[in-house]
Amino acid sequence: MNKLTWGMIGGGEGSQIGGAHRVAAGLDGAFSFSAGALDIDAAKGRDFAIRLGAAADRAYGDWREMLEGESNRPDPVDLITVATPNNTHFEITKAFLQAGFNVLCEKPITTTVAEAEEIVAVARQAKRLCAVNYGYSGYPLVRQMRAMVAKGELGAVRLVVAEFAHGFHADAADADNPRVRWRYDPAQAGVSSVVADCGSHALHMACFVTGQTVTKLSADFASCLEGRALEDDALIAFRMHGGTVGRLWTSAVAVGRMHGLTLQVFGEKGGLRWAQEQPNQLIWTPLNESSRILERGAAGLSPAAQSASRLAIGHTEGMFAAFANLYADLAEAIRAQKEGRSMAADAFACPTAEDGLHSVAAIHAAAASAKSGGAWVELEG
Amino acid sequence: MNKLTWGMIGGGEGSQIGGAHRVAAGLDGAFSFSAGALDIDAAKGRDFAIRLGAAADRAYGDWREMLEGESNRPDPVDLITVATPNNTHFEITKAFLQAGFNVLCEKPITTTVAEAEEIVAVARQAKRLCAVNYGYSGYPLVRQMRAMVAKGELGAVRLVVAEFAHGFHADAADADNPRVRWRYDPAQAGVSSVVADCGSHALHMACFVTGQTVTKLSADFASCLEGRALEDDALIAFRMHGGTVGRLWTSAVAVGRMHGLTLQVFGEKGGLRWAQEQPNQLIWTPLNESSRILERGAAGLSPAAQSASRLAIGHTEGMFAAFANLYADLAEAIRAQKEGRSMAADAFACPTAEDGLHSVAAIHAAAASAKSGGAWVELEG
Amino acid sequence: MNKLTWGMIGGGEGSQIGGAHRVAAGLDGAFSFSAGALDIDAAKGRDFAIRLGAAADRAYGDWREMLEGESNRPDPVDLITVATPNNTHFEITKAFLQAGFNVLCEKPITTTVAEAEEIVAVARQAKRLCAVNYGYSGYPLVRQMRAMVAKGELGAVRLVVAEFAHGFHADAADADNPRVRWRYDPAQAGVSSVVADCGSHALHMACFVTGQTVTKLSADFASCLEGRALEDDALIAFRMHGGTVGRLWTSAVAVGRMHGLTLQVFGEKGGLRWAQEQPNQLIWTPLNESSRILERGAAGLSPAAQSASRLAIGHTEGMFAAFANLYADLAEAIRAQKEGRSMAADAFACPTAEDGLHSVAAIHAAAASAKSGGAWVELEG
Amino acid sequence: MNKLTWGMIGGGEGSQIGGAHRVAAGLDGAFSFSAGALDIDAAKGRDFAIRLGAAADRAYGDWREMLEGESNRPDPVDLITVATPNNTHFEITKAFLQAGFNVLCEKPITTTVAEAEEIVAVARQAKRLCAVNYGYSGYPLVRQMRAMVAKGELGAVRLVVAEFAHGFHADAADADNPRVRWRYDPAQAGVSSVVADCGSHALHMACFVTGQTVTKLSADFASCLEGRALEDDALIAFRMHGGTVGRLWTSAVAVGRMHGLTLQVFGEKGGLRWAQEQPNQLIWTPLNESSRILERGAAGLSPAAQSASRLAIGHTEGMFAAFANLYADLAEAIRAQKEGRSMAADAFACPTAEDGLHSVAAIHAAAASAKSGGAWVELEG
Repeated sequence: MNKLTWGMIGGGEGSQIGGAHRVAAGLDGAFSFSAGALDIDAAKGRDFAIRLGAAADRAYGDWREMLEGESNRPDPVDLITVATPNNTHFEITKAFLQAGFNVLCEKPITTTVAEAEEIVAVARQAKRLCAVNYGYSGYPLVRQMRAMVAKGELGAVRLVVAEFAHGFHADAADADNPRVRWRYDPAQAGVSSVVADCGSHALHMACFVTGQTVTKLSADFASCLEGRALEDDALIAFRMHGGTVGRLWTSAVAVGRMHGLTLQVFGEKGGLRWAQEQPNQLIWTPLNESSRILERGAAGLSPAAQSASRLAIGHTEGMFAAFANLYADLAEAIRAQKEGRSMAADAFACPTAEDGLHSVAAIHAAAASAKSGGAWVELEG
Repeated sequence: MNKLTWGMIGGGEGSQIGGAHRVAAGLDGAFSFSAGALDIDAAKGRDFAIRLGAAADRAYGDWREMLEGESNRPDPVDLITVATPNNTHFEITKAFLQAGFNVLCEKPITTTVAEAEEIVAVARQAKRLCAVNYGYSGYPLVRQMRAMVAKGELGAVRLVVAEFAHGFHADAADADNPRVRWRYDPAQAGVSSVVADCGSHALHMACFVTGQTVTKLSADFASCLEGRALEDDALIAFRMHGGTVGRLWTSAVAVGRMHGLTLQVFGEKGGLRWAQEQPNQLIWTPLNESSRILERGAAGLSPAAQSASRLAIGHTEGMFAAFANLYADLAEAIRAQKEGRSMAADAFACPTAEDGLHSVAAIHAAAASAKSGGAWVELEG
Repeated sequence: MNKLTWGMIGGGEGSQIGGAHRVAAGLDGAFSFSAGALDIDAAKGRDFAIRLGAAADRAYGDWREMLEGESNRPDPVDLITVATPNNTHFEITKAFLQAGFNVLCEKPITTTVAEAEEIVAVARQAKRLCAVNYGYSGYPLVRQMRAMVAKGELGAVRLVVAEFAHGFHADAADADNPRVRWRYDPAQAGVSSVVADCGSHALHMACFVTGQTVTKLSADFASCLEGRALEDDALIAFRMHGGTVGRLWTSAVAVGRMHGLTLQVFGEKGGLRWAQEQPNQLIWTPLNESSRILERGAAGLSPAAQSASRLAIGHTEGMFAAFANLYADLAEAIRAQKEGRSMAADAFACPTAEDGLHSVAAIHAAAASAKSGGAWVELEG
Repeated sequence: MNKLTWGMIGGGEGSQIGGAHRVAAGLDGAFSFSAGALDIDAAKGRDFAIRLGAAADRAYGDWREMLEGESNRPDPVDLITVATPNNTHFEITKAFLQAGFNVLCEKPITTTVAEAEEIVAVARQAKRLCAVNYGYSGYPLVRQMRAMVAKGELGAVRLVVAEFAHGFHADAADADNPRVRWRYDPAQAGVSSVVADCGSHALHMACFVTGQTVTKLSADFASCLEGRALEDDALIAFRMHGGTVGRLWTSAVAVGRMHGLTLQVFGEKGGLRWAQEQPNQLIWTPLNESSRILERGAAGLSPAAQSASRLAIGHTEGMFAAFANLYADLAEAIRAQKEGRSMAADAFACPTAEDGLHSVAAIHAAAASAKSGGAWVELEG
């Protein structure tokens, strides 16, 4: 099986997310790094791309150059990852989709609902894949949760409780550090900070696992550190189209919490609990029975969880492997595309532009609700 | 030191809470059971009281008989515990306070704010102790949290996150079981179910630990099981008088959660996390440092935590010992009362009628907010 | 039901174990403290006994006075607890048994195997109860483990792994503190320190849960702190009469370990894991299935676990309640004795003189094995 | 920086360990797969090598062919990984070292002490790197433990407690499954089963972290399943050259234990505890202080832990990333070798042939001790 070719825009040397994409794309050996416009500094970006293995003529100075270069080749890259600053996602993703490329865009896919709707439309028209990196959905046991819900093992899902709390923006003495400050500046971050940055992951997981979307929500935003124009803590009540009740807490000032992304799902026939910091175990409680500890890699897990798992039970798989599952999904879909095979809609677990749109709509609805004193706001999009 | 005398109303044979009160009151040997009107069935109640050690003439048929009997004795009981159905708390507590007794009332102290205000006024006028059984405040490490906050070890408290989630009302097949059903019947349970039953404990802990009261809140109530007139799940955003932001989730349909009472407190200088199911450890994270595991019984804990602890570090103390700390507080205050000593206000950690009033006000505010679509409601009382 | 009467020798004011016995004996209201010789200082002991509720003529100056006083009463105490220094257990226990009293003796029951054998013989001859305080066997989930093994839910038990590790004797600067030093002085502590003090509890649990005794063992003793004549860390391999293989690690120098008493039992058909610091959960793994979390108080637990449990599921029960289960066992057996009823042998879960003898034999065998370079030593007794 | 070239012998399609090596070698992009003799079936092996990216003339049919082919090239691979059956390690590793290749060999490096000694000698003479895959030593927090010990933060290390317990050979009905059976067949597995397979990892970690080697040991082997000629459970007491006391338990019949590799290290000034199943946290207890939770990725960790870490704090790193650290160590050492730079001895954390020899010596000593009833046996080599 020949390797697929892959290019990246942004994610230059020293960027954590860029490195994570490279590890994830390469983990199964499905993608080969072939082209890149990796840095705002064209020379640096070219140099780094070459060091990563790109041919010199595919080490581009910026994304426009790359769009032109790749478009004019007989062998353009099979997949483009967009890992540039948030406010450039729309323009770049749209341009590449229109030129016929498959794209994996970092979240948020755009900064407005209208733009996100446009991306969805463009991707459909172009018949290209447009994925969004809600990478935590790649954990095998998150996929197990989704499979169990889909199979009805919880009965109707009544309640989903999502959380993403950290404490790394809690230090007042560090609040003006540019690394932190831009996140609370509406000009750079948009209508929301921690909900957009963290809460959106938890909310995506709630949708991913339940197979439902959010219909309306009521939000409370708080700026716990003085002088912040955007929220550093939020509480959101929501309802989903299948009738599920939702609760979400997200925070950037929860000192001592590291990466508190958790999901709890409660249905008529049982409950599930999972925490990102201990991703290789899932607690399942069938109604009126003892809780069970489902281990990643265990016999008896769903096919979706099994195929997303690389190591034997008891070994630890972390975020790289989770993230690699999105690339594995993309590889499979791209091969189907190249071979003209159709895929079952539910066979593609990787989050898409539709998910990205839903997330942007939820962020905007939350900001609107918070502004109007917690009024329930229906989601656009 | 002579034992104090103690009586109970309600809490008859087979009642879990009655048994817990007896264990707690007797644990340190400070109180001796001397009088009781323990059962709605007068004969049964008398018989049980005698078996518990009351003299025959102090084994009463009902609370009115007990009020009269004890009032006319030269040696009336030093403390009365009221563990009758919720809608009788007001009448009984008021009558005993007015007759000059010290009272420990089960929560909720009353069913309306006006009644709770009256109890507060009566207790002040009578100069008697009126305590309310928010028993989880007796855990040594909950007192440690309170002491650390009071001492400023967290700096200003920005955020408090409280949770009390269980799943024991999730079985649709069991929903008509009388043991469950009354809790969702407004005629018996009042304006709220799980917020009143469970959430109020978590909210009290938030107040107890921060030393603040709730000023306003926004609530979302959900009835996850069809046909329930009251909420079995709720999410509440709140603000406290000292500026702290609050989040509360409570549920009775969270299958697999047992007794999920947890408190997290986040301030300028650190964070604290505690869970009732593992009460002998407290996680403390000083800002920009590693988290520490504070063990109950450890050297270096606050005097409040030390004096609330009976066993050496590493041994487990559970709910009986926590609950006994409220009785220990009461014993100390009653001895001071009898000896005419005054006590420092902050020396009495046991929750009082004021706390009970605050809790009732919060429950009513939450119900009102939920009814009006999550509007922020200020607390009465 | 009239209360039983109870007396204690040793366990004076300020003693932790004395206080624990009083809480445990009183927790269910079965025993009433009626007599005591509580302190080496006769006057202090008398004064404290009176304050605890003993009549003046039953507040004794020493155990001999108490033996005589109680023997000559028409209503001697129903149970005597012996909580004096270890080297006095034999003499006092023997004397009270011979005088017809039921005795609960602190562990170790004696300091030599011969003495322990004598106690067993004396108790049989006197037809009195002689219990030994291996109090951790009172935890409901330890009894659950025992019931599951007895019922065959694990199949034949192949392997038991017991551990009791703490770190409170690790501070070289504190090694000469009398509180610590005596434990490493053979003149006071006998042939073993941490094995006798801690390991013996873990070993008792292994026997209690498997229903087997140790037949032979091989031990390695280490004195990690310079100058200690006795071991502060030990590793023991053992075999049990039913064919079970055993492993035991115990330590007093494991800095950071608090009260690391754990038991793991592995059989043909499943495994069980329990830890004293989190006593309200038991992990059960049926062969080839997911692990289950058995909660204290859950429906479906064995009758032995149910009857040893006082609070609803999710609430925490700690050591006081565990310890109280030994007193509850004794109360039931004493009532049967008084009423001339016979009890099924396996109905009395409380550890007995036979268990105490077995423990002393194991300690001596371990010391002998360690001395002879880990040679396998068969147990006496 | 040009990629290094890498080849593998064994680890063909479907092999878990082969896949893990490929992920680990490629994770940082340092190595490029260039040559392989991957399968006992020459055609299959060639085909798979080509699919993995090897040029056709470097897709070999067996290791001898590969030795010849690579030796005769101007650009032989920079590193060879040997992932063939255990009894071939010696021959292959020796041959490649002698031909001037750097080798990473799967554990055990050889099956006898004499062979391991020969490998050590050959590697020294050839001045080539010979590494052994004790991959758990690559976890950042294992390196943190080592750095803390080396820096003296624990003072003298008194005690090390290592454990590796799983339950995957506990099913009697599965005991004759060839996947299981060969491990208990002395003809295939040698003198030891679970000690060689699992215990050796735990023992290596004990040595790696303390910086000490084992001088002597006393072992108890048990075959819990009938008919097994080799041990499926073992307990080992040991002493290290620096005076540290050691305890090791390893098991393959501990039903419910998944991959119970843990290490606890206790010194004069503190203790450390780490568990493979939750590798991103390390518990550190300074003497007489509260325990701290050290998070992978935290500021303040040692340079060794920092440089072994790729993701921000709170994100999960698993076994692939740990394992990749061995390849990162090798890449650095190979670059130094190619550039003629010398490296500080302690800069190369990757386990070497010396570690492999020590491990083989310990396995043989344990088997000898167990055979002679637990007698203390000194290590060869």
